[in-house]
Amino acid sequence: MQVFETIGAMQEWCLEQKKQGLTIGLVPTMGYLHQGHLSLVQEARRQCNRVVVSIFVNPIQFGAGEDLDKYPRDVSGDCRLLEGEETDAVFIPSVREMYPEGYATFVEMDGSITNRLCGASRPGHFRGVTTVVSKLFNICLPDKAFFGQKDAQQVLVIEKMVRELNFPLQIVRVPIKRESDGLAMSSRNVYLSSEQRRQALVLSQALQQAGEIIGQGERDPAKVIAGMRAKIESAAEAQIDYIEIYRADDLGDIKQIEGQVLIALAVKFGTTRLIDNLLVEV
Amino acid sequence: MQVFETIGAMQEWCLEQKKQGLTIGLVPTMGYLHQGHLSLVQEARRQCNRVVVSIFVNPIQFGAGEDLDKYPRDVSGDCRLLEGEETDAVFIPSVREMYPEGYATFVEMDGSITNRLCGASRPGHFRGVTTVVSKLFNICLPDKAFFGQKDAQQVLVIEKMVRELNFPLQIVRVPIKRESDGLAMSSRNVYLSSEQRRQALVLSQALQQAGEIIGQGERDPAKVIAGMRAKIESAAEAQIDYIEIYRADDLGDIKQIEGQVLIALAVKFGTTRLIDNLLVEV
Repeated sequence: MQVFETIGAMQEWCLEQKKQGLTIGLVPTMGYLHQGHLSLVQEARRQCNRVVVSIFVNPIQFGAGEDLDKYPRDVSGDCRLLEGEETDAVFIPSVREMYPEGYATFVEMDGSITNRLCGASRPGHFRGVTTVVSKLFNICLPDKAFFGQKDAQQVLVIEKMVRELNFPLQIVRVPIKRESDGLAMSSRNVYLSSEQRRQALVLSQALQQAGEIIGQGERDPAKVIAGMRAKIESAAEAQIDYIEIYRADDLGDIKQIEGQVLIALAVKFGTTRLIDNLLVEV
Repeated sequence: MQVFETIGAMQEWCLEQKKQGLTIGLVPTMGYLHQGHLSLVQEARRQCNRVVVSIFVNPIQFGAGEDLDKYPRDVSGDCRLLEGEETDAVFIPSVREMYPEGYATFVEMDGSITNRLCGASRPGHFRGVTTVVSKLFNICLPDKAFFGQKDAQQVLVIEKMVRELNFPLQIVRVPIKRESDGLAMSSRNVYLSSEQRRQALVLSQALQQAGEIIGQGERDPAKVIAGMRAKIESAAEAQIDYIEIYRADDLGDIKQIEGQVLIALAVKFGTTRLIDNLLVEV
């Protein structure tokens, strides 16, 4: 497994693979890898000749007061895990490498797809995501890039960006990986106290319950959300950021649950903000 | 010469050339081609295996009240000229093809490089330029892209964007082409009345005079600009938008003329806004 720390060396290696007619699968991550990330790497391994994983905690997608400084990191542990998945190349640039002094170019998306859900709670977050992902696409030249459905809004934003800026690549969505008790895997789960970890189960339970009552015929988003709210508020430390239901393909508003909808939530336990979601097809 | 009107077909053709190991030179234009454009095509022809020219009057780089609707167009004339230069492919998308309904993704650049000179007179202009050029790069996958030094600020913005978003390509600057009497070639020159056309000579004359007095030892930008202003104001119909001198590589402010500087001007004759510039090395 090759490790690259500079943009020039990484891009040159990728150009060389392309010249040989090989396909590249890119898995962009912020490191501190768990089974969710590895499922993306495994999918890339199945679909592409070369697998590139980037590890970069992207400062410009964190807002003031967010957890940039304490975001968990373990590059050597990450590299061991990636070796085990037959990763071909890992890209681990420094912040200065990605954003040299005087850096000024950003990719932005207007509209409802970025300004609701996490976009409302974290202004500027998606501008940071679309910018760094554009850079990674240009550096790593993937034929396919793999993203987890856990970050449902992020996948939608990136899919729209790829369509609209005409990147010559395909986005592959990989389903959410969960712990055996249902908690969605996240690098941020390590922040939770054992009591918070126990209480955080209400998130996946609330989503499951929402899926069930929709399955039983409920079509009113407000009623589904009210049920979820009651479930989540039964956990003493839970502070709800949002629970919302939108049209799944563009986060458009819905009056009634029909077609494919995204049920998404963000909830804080202490200072730890967790997200989870469920796609439901009616 | 192949003509493509859809993004999908153009991108597929370019991917096929790359697969064959051929290099692609891209010349982005807004059409109504003159010898200045053709000098870009000729340079691309010399440097690359395949030459792609795009013709697209990009609405998002025009402001309210600018000349989008009356911008001159002559696609069949353009195609004849491009055939004569052994162009391999022409890309002529519609506005709807480039910006489908709900389009929301933009590439932006902050800072002095975009907010002075034409950026000050035309707010939003460079956002339109960086967005469309990013799209064209992703569609046409050039190894090299060719831009005219006539649009000096545009070239600087695009070079910075390529560096910062890490596009895997090289920008080639091609010198300004002038009419035999010195007027910089521009599609907008057709707007000029014969009297305006005659008066417009003061632009290249003012630049030439500035170069001469710097050559004679003048180092004060204000004095150089004052001399240019007097020359240009000698033309009855000239309305100066700006005459400015900046550091050539980043449009930084200078107190004294040293190193490489860009002397740039924009002047209106009636409703026609012309630009011209001179790079001076001291």
